[in-house]
Amino acid sequence: MHVDSVAIIGVGLLGGSLGLALKARGLVGVVRGVGRRRESLSKALEVGAIDSAHLDLSGGVQDADVIVVCTPASQVIAMLDVLRDAALPSAFVTDVASTKASICAHAHATWSAPRRFVGSHPMAGSEKFGPEHAYANLYEGAVVALEKSGGLDEHARETIRELWQCVGARIVEVEPVEHDAIVARTSHVPHVAAAALAVIASRQGANARPLSGKGFRDATRIAASRSEVWRDICLTNREAVLNGLDEFADELRQIRAAIDRRDAVAIEAFFNTGRIARAEVAGT
Amino acid sequence: MHVDSVAIIGVGLLGGSLGLALKARGLVGVVRGVGRRRESLSKALEVGAIDSAHLDLSGGVQDADVIVVCTPASQVIAMLDVLRDAALPSAFVTDVASTKASICAHAHATWSAPRRFVGSHPMAGSEKFGPEHAYANLYEGAVVALEKSGGLDEHARETIRELWQCVGARIVEVEPVEHDAIVARTSHVPHVAAAALAVIASRQGANARPLSGKGFRDATRIAASRSEVWRDICLTNREAVLNGLDEFADELRQIRAAIDRRDAVAIEAFFNTGRIARAEVAGT
Repeated sequence: MHVDSVAIIGVGLLGGSLGLALKARGLVGVVRGVGRRRESLSKALEVGAIDSAHLDLSGGVQDADVIVVCTPASQVIAMLDVLRDAALPSAFVTDVASTKASICAHAHATWSAPRRFVGSHPMAGSEKFGPEHAYANLYEGAVVALEKSGGLDEHARETIRELWQCVGARIVEVEPVEHDAIVARTSHVPHVAAAALAVIASRQGANARPLSGKGFRDATRIAASRSEVWRDICLTNREAVLNGLDEFADELRQIRAAIDRRDAVAIEAFFNTGRIARAEVAGT
Repeated sequence: MHVDSVAIIGVGLLGGSLGLALKARGLVGVVRGVGRRRESLSKALEVGAIDSAHLDLSGGVQDADVIVVCTPASQVIAMLDVLRDAALPSAFVTDVASTKASICAHAHATWSAPRRFVGSHPMAGSEKFGPEHAYANLYEGAVVALEKSGGLDEHARETIRELWQCVGARIVEVEPVEHDAIVARTSHVPHVAAAALAVIASRQGANARPLSGKGFRDATRIAASRSEVWRDICLTNREAVLNGLDEFADELRQIRAAIDRRDAVAIEAFFNTGRIARAEVAGT
């Protein structure tokens, strides 16, 4: 793959790392960074994630063959509305938002067919953020969920797929609604649970800290993430998160009842099922 | 500290590691291992965790100055009943069970005052178990919760405290009921939550695996633990776990309602509170 010009809109951890990865591999002629904050753009320039920095969107995307929207999830839809006119008619566009159904449905409804926007969700990143934490290998070995929909431009789909593969990612094609249902359970509900666990533990006062171990640290690590990001995810994936929370509450109600009636067999079976389920989803 | 003879009842990960640690530091004359399974005892002998192996309890504890009960939590109370008669009247006794209220209350009710049994809970271990995983540094830097109760033998308390400090642990004295309330929130409810999260994620089918990342792996790691252990903990710390589950369900209900009514401010506040709470309890 070689692309003359890639525009990255939003040069935080994901956008900055993509720029670094593309440049480290010599896959693109020029990487343009578009952002709203002067500070992030100059940091991204400084670490070598982008070749040019643009506060104005049109300047940044005017010659871009590929545009990757790395803004917060809540801003992707508005950005697609702008890009529909601002981008070259030949440009391929993707994003990195953690939820896909509403974004892809909006693109489906508003972009002409065959659609040159193909949604992506790279399963990479951490509680860290900002271009100062960007690194070229962020996507190495990561999974990128790629939109599976009817009506996509075949060339766009292939180019976006190659873009991610070139920076080391493994592609999983999945329909947006299925994607959102799954990540609600593998990521969004776990984030909600981690925050709730931290809250009830902290109410125990000063001794909670010495009396918590590695298990607690691991189980609640994702509660250290940014509130705005998770607020947006809960809002954009609202229905799937609500359904996931209901399933979670159901499981908790059942094990609560088993503990309440001292049902040793049911309690052991619950933990057994959990251990097997965890191995299925997360590996060993 | 020097003790002529220590008996360790139950030579799994915790008991085996204690034996290794005491012997590595030359703190005891002889470490006797007591167990019910020939295989575990011979493994513990082989790795050097114990100096003598005893299938019969009385042979193992007859000359012991300090006895550490490292059996599963569900067997500690029955073991204390036996030790009341089998141990030397001068012996000091402790245990390593993850729950303390029922064990310490039983000891309080049945042992003569001043009590020579002082409960312990080392915050160490992992999903691994058995003497083959024992290592001398398991307790290095770990916290050991030590029973704070009226009516304890001062010398017993001091000796048990020193025993743990000598193998590298940091002592936190805490009343058994407070201990159990705290660990219900820092450990037991998180284990239940992790198992429930794994269960609902696995129901999403084959794509759940590629679409789960490090966050899911961390958040559910403790679901890989042994079912029997967590069954016993839920049963022995039943009330505190039920209360903790109720508080957890309450938090989940509130955030669910906020997501349902699209209350961005309340959702962000929830995640903020979670992040701060997590930093308080787990550090950064």
